[in-house]
Amino acid sequence: MQRLIKGLIQKNNTKILLVVLDGLGGLPVDGKTELEFADTRNLDELAEKSACGLHIPVSIGITPGSGPGHLSLFGYDPFEWQIGRGVLEALGLGMGLKKTDVAVRVNYATIENGIVKDRRAGRIPTDVSKKITERLQSKIKKIDDVEIIFAPGMEHRFAVVLRFSEPLPRGSDSIKDTDPQKEGNAPVPVTPETAEARQVARVVKKLISKISDIIKKEPQANFVLLRGFAQVPDIPHFEEAYGLKPLCIAVYPMYRGLAKLLGMNAPAITGDIKEEVDFLKENYNNYDFFFMHVKKIDSYGEDGNFKAKASKIEEFDKALPDILGLNPDVLVITGDHSTPSLLRGHSWHPVPVLLKSPYVLGYTCKAFSERECLKGEFGIFPTVNLMTLALANAGRLKKFGA
Amino acid sequence: MQRLIKGLIQKNNTKILLVVLDGLGGLPVDGKTELEFADTRNLDELAEKSACGLHIPVSIGITPGSGPGHLSLFGYDPFEWQIGRGVLEALGLGMGLKKTDVAVRVNYATIENGIVKDRRAGRIPTDVSKKITERLQSKIKKIDDVEIIFAPGMEHRFAVVLRFSEPLPRGSDSIKDTDPQKEGNAPVPVTPETAEARQVARVVKKLISKISDIIKKEPQANFVLLRGFAQVPDIPHFEEAYGLKPLCIAVYPMYRGLAKLLGMNAPAITGDIKEEVDFLKENYNNYDFFFMHVKKIDSYGEDGNFKAKASKIEEFDKALPDILGLNPDVLVITGDHSTPSLLRGHSWHPVPVLLKSPYVLGYTCKAFSERECLKGEFGIFPTVNLMTLALANAGRLKKFGA
Repeated sequence: MQRLIKGLIQKNNTKILLVVLDGLGGLPVDGKTELEFADTRNLDELAEKSACGLHIPVSIGITPGSGPGHLSLFGYDPFEWQIGRGVLEALGLGMGLKKTDVAVRVNYATIENGIVKDRRAGRIPTDVSKKITERLQSKIKKIDDVEIIFAPGMEHRFAVVLRFSEPLPRGSDSIKDTDPQKEGNAPVPVTPETAEARQVARVVKKLISKISDIIKKEPQANFVLLRGFAQVPDIPHFEEAYGLKPLCIAVYPMYRGLAKLLGMNAPAITGDIKEEVDFLKENYNNYDFFFMHVKKIDSYGEDGNFKAKASKIEEFDKALPDILGLNPDVLVITGDHSTPSLLRGHSWHPVPVLLKSPYVLGYTCKAFSERECLKGEFGIFPTVNLMTLALANAGRLKKFGA
Repeated sequence: MQRLIKGLIQKNNTKILLVVLDGLGGLPVDGKTELEFADTRNLDELAEKSACGLHIPVSIGITPGSGPGHLSLFGYDPFEWQIGRGVLEALGLGMGLKKTDVAVRVNYATIENGIVKDRRAGRIPTDVSKKITERLQSKIKKIDDVEIIFAPGMEHRFAVVLRFSEPLPRGSDSIKDTDPQKEGNAPVPVTPETAEARQVARVVKKLISKISDIIKKEPQANFVLLRGFAQVPDIPHFEEAYGLKPLCIAVYPMYRGLAKLLGMNAPAITGDIKEEVDFLKENYNNYDFFFMHVKKIDSYGEDGNFKAKASKIEEFDKALPDILGLNPDVLVITGDHSTPSLLRGHSWHPVPVLLKSPYVLGYTCKAFSERECLKGEFGIFPTVNLMTLALANAGRLKKFGA
């Protein structure tokens, strides 16, 4: 998709605003979905005159993680660009990543005579594990030529980034997890699964040995288990792909991290929907593309809290007139995947979307909901095409062929 | 699709029931399709609360044969897995096939001075041809190391399987039909079209010569013409692909044969819808996946018998409450292709489908028909994705990406 678009990009002064209500789509409880239950008078009014539809982030029937969900929204093929666990974990802990990095998720563990007794070191408190991790960082800064960066996490978890001086060949992150998955086993030795991964594996072995020397006297966290080795993908930047200057407006570090991977400006902000809208307004003149991310709708879905999810949608609905006041040329409101409270997790269900622009049919839907969006002019379509629709409606795509 | 799914499979105790009403889709006669004309109160009630849609077995505008129609339903790409005529014919005659087999359709023919006088040996009666075929089997058991298995068919038709001791390379079945297609010509010599096919061709030449020696004194069936050489595809088994233990419930041998190719258990059963439902109930505890095939809807469509097709659909509708009594976690009711009575044959029209599970929107359609399914939450989608939807609704697929 991006390859096709690249030759068609033309610049102009339009502004595109993509609002991602994380986990937006839902399923009925007592006959109504969260969107149908919520009082969304502003969204409904907007949906009526917008182009609506439902999009499929990865493939029919496939439940997307947050990574593939967002990459698709940004027009990146989620099969071509898979972002590994270690990278997502590091992004989630607020680490800035470079293309020469390999990121890993790490657990503190308790080991006795070479056997893992507790894979989570008794779930030690976050403040304890944070101090240990800071100690590790103070004592380990480099291994050979490779910079080592630690990021403390919750309880027994943290992340490590190995920053090489040069980009690594593909496949350099094919290293087996050292976590044996079951207590009573020895940790899995550091095992490269490709020839390319040997270089990284050598550094990892030295790292584990150094860490072990430093923490071996700890009562619980006396060893580490590594999982999800992942290189940072050499992914084209958003501006280069679309000719848009992008701003990410997100409270949660992982989404900012993902945006930064794509070269978006993504300053750290705090607060909630109101603060995000304020931030949008303050920066409205300085960018062409805005990715505004509202996390809590998904969180309540994951909790199985139908009413709280609906309330959070209502809160966004109340902020909508303020956003519309900016009069963006193209406004897209959607989610990165569905998170029905009924399922307490991400799901495979297509995600409702509305696109406001002067160049739509409109008046095929009466409200913004899963069932009304079925009647929309976009039909059911792959998420990866949504960015193309935004660009087209912004007049930023030339004709294909003569 | 299967490659994507394979890494995401997780097992649980759910049961999936796929009911294939062969040739289900239709076209209006006097304003109503067979489904619209039939009294399908149970299906209509079920459709209302189910996820509905229409699926396309092969590609838009393409009329599928039974092979591709079913492979798509089972989630196998019908372009990747093409099942040759010889194999389908052998399956239809109830032969059990192995992955080392090459199967061929054969006609008895009448030959005179090396020229084909009648390509169908005067359509000799089935009982006559059966006796000749049994005689061939009694006299020909092996050629070189290759086991030769005959299966009598209707009138002048039968099938032969060449069972090699080892799997053959791809392309070993690229042999020209020996049927010259027109009377007055000599039979086409056995001609391998690839290097890989030479080994099979040598055996086929010897086989024809042996058969000819045995039947040359027959008044009509004094020669054979061979068509549709086909290797059995090395297709992944259903259980390996999806982690489901499958049972095929089908009266017609071809569908059982196809199911067996995919490693399904497919015992020979007789009877009609009632007997199939009884068989389903008896075996319900021993499998995870049930493929129940109802043939006659298609047969009446092929006859152009609109009312009989509608009646057969009604007969299934009456059996539906009994099936619902089993309360499968996921119930899919659909066809493998459309067979409008109006066309007296398979057609390219998308096939109505309903999927019952606790995780659907529902209430977008008022009945189970081609036109109502258009309003369904699945939209119009490729048949090959239906299996993914069934697995997702059964909670048998993990998330893609983190």
